[in-house]
Amino acid sequence: MPPEEHTEAKPIKTDDYRVTPGKAVDLKDFATRYEGDMDRDEAEARFEGLVRRLQRLQELLYADGSRAVLVVLQAMDAGGKDSTIRKVFGPLNPQGCRVTGFKRPSTLELSHDYLWRIHAAAPRKGSIAVFNRSHYEDVLVVRVKGIVEKDVWKRRYDHINDFERLLADEGTAVVKFFLHISKDYQKQRLQRRLDIPEKNWKFEVGDLAERARWADYQRAFEDALGRCSTDHAPWYVVPAERRWFRNLLIASVMVRTLESLGLRYPRADFDPSDIRID
Amino acid sequence: MPPEEHTEAKPIKTDDYRVTPGKAVDLKDFATRYEGDMDRDEAEARFEGLVRRLQRLQELLYADGSRAVLVVLQAMDAGGKDSTIRKVFGPLNPQGCRVTGFKRPSTLELSHDYLWRIHAAAPRKGSIAVFNRSHYEDVLVVRVKGIVEKDVWKRRYDHINDFERLLADEGTAVVKFFLHISKDYQKQRLQRRLDIPEKNWKFEVGDLAERARWADYQRAFEDALGRCSTDHAPWYVVPAERRWFRNLLIASVMVRTLESLGLRYPRADFDPSDIRID
Repeated sequence: MPPEEHTEAKPIKTDDYRVTPGKAVDLKDFATRYEGDMDRDEAEARFEGLVRRLQRLQELLYADGSRAVLVVLQAMDAGGKDSTIRKVFGPLNPQGCRVTGFKRPSTLELSHDYLWRIHAAAPRKGSIAVFNRSHYEDVLVVRVKGIVEKDVWKRRYDHINDFERLLADEGTAVVKFFLHISKDYQKQRLQRRLDIPEKNWKFEVGDLAERARWADYQRAFEDALGRCSTDHAPWYVVPAERRWFRNLLIASVMVRTLESLGLRYPRADFDPSDIRID
Repeated sequence: MPPEEHTEAKPIKTDDYRVTPGKAVDLKDFATRYEGDMDRDEAEARFEGLVRRLQRLQELLYADGSRAVLVVLQAMDAGGKDSTIRKVFGPLNPQGCRVTGFKRPSTLELSHDYLWRIHAAAPRKGSIAVFNRSHYEDVLVVRVKGIVEKDVWKRRYDHINDFERLLADEGTAVVKFFLHISKDYQKQRLQRRLDIPEKNWKFEVGDLAERARWADYQRAFEDALGRCSTDHAPWYVVPAERRWFRNLLIASVMVRTLESLGLRYPRADFDPSDIRID
């Protein structure tokens, strides 16, 4: 495929949003709202081009059959995980893109280690898996609420890095997005669920208790992002308050990730002109 | 939601394509190509409307949370299962629509009964599962190739009906589509995979051996459709050679199926005006 995106005038500098491996993270250094000079119309037009490219790359990923992609999405409540899935991953072929949501673990899941259910949902070769929440909850909500002791969650960063290393070594590209929003923006989005009757069902009173622990969550995210951004499984901090920029950035990272895999259409092991269909 | 589709001028008569429960099937009685008086432009416009309605119904299915939908797709090779998934189910929210392809069973799968892997992929409440091939292969390819004895596959029609009854009783609507094509049409489609270099990788030489058993497969399909079309899990025979009609018919059946479930948005268990977000 021609490297269309490489020749565009102003490619998104995805590295600006990537958490440098080994570097501590202060989320105040990262914007929650894109304030660059691109406007919405331009962003949406570019996004459409990236989606078409992603669709072709997805077919190539399937045809190639030797690699897989795991996408991790994390955010505070109302950070836009669902709409990211709908907008960025919705246009992909559902046959090769499977979304798994990780909610409160079931009794069966809790009777195993916390990576058991995660590993079971890892993508098969040729496909993309999208995780709506993930194993990172085990160092986020689990830490903030004190569901396990500090010495237990502390060692999990190493488990997670080891697990993602395994996936990468065995052919799965791992890419992780933190949808970064401000506390004010969350308030607006939650209020919207109250104001619009058809959205009331999305509001959970319990979300307010989580919101009250905003600072604790931000600190937990900073540790997760800082300790677990690696060359083989990088974290991106996505300014998520302007959704059109969020979509454009995530689609850009996805295209670059897929383009980096060296995917190829398999060569036919027969000569098409030799075959006669009766 | 307003019953938009009920008021349209000429709704598709989906019942014309439904296999009557208890009635033997002769596939020669069913068209492989739509020859009615609707044209492609009209069909595509109506399809777009149905897709939008399906998207809203999918959200309602999720919000309601008490029901699920299982879609089974079967066809001869090159019958259009993949493109049906892309066109009809592609526009749905991937978070609530999971596609599972059932290929040749793995060693682990073969160490269980043939419904084990099928049951494991059944949809969770609030969601749609699409099966690309299914348990029906166990009375199709397994029968035609003599992988098990006749007395073994013969009793499977009852197992399958009992299994689908269980799903229906416990809240899962089951709807099954056989994409019906002629042997000539299959030839055209397979030839296309040889003629277009980028499609060569989709061609499998082994498909020709299956094609040589066309009549045996048609007979096996007739038995599967005739014995396993029930009120709670009907089979539809879809004329699949004009894809725009195929898509329209399947989307129509999906809309009717979802509309029949009596889905409702849950009532909030709080008064939105009582809640203050700090």
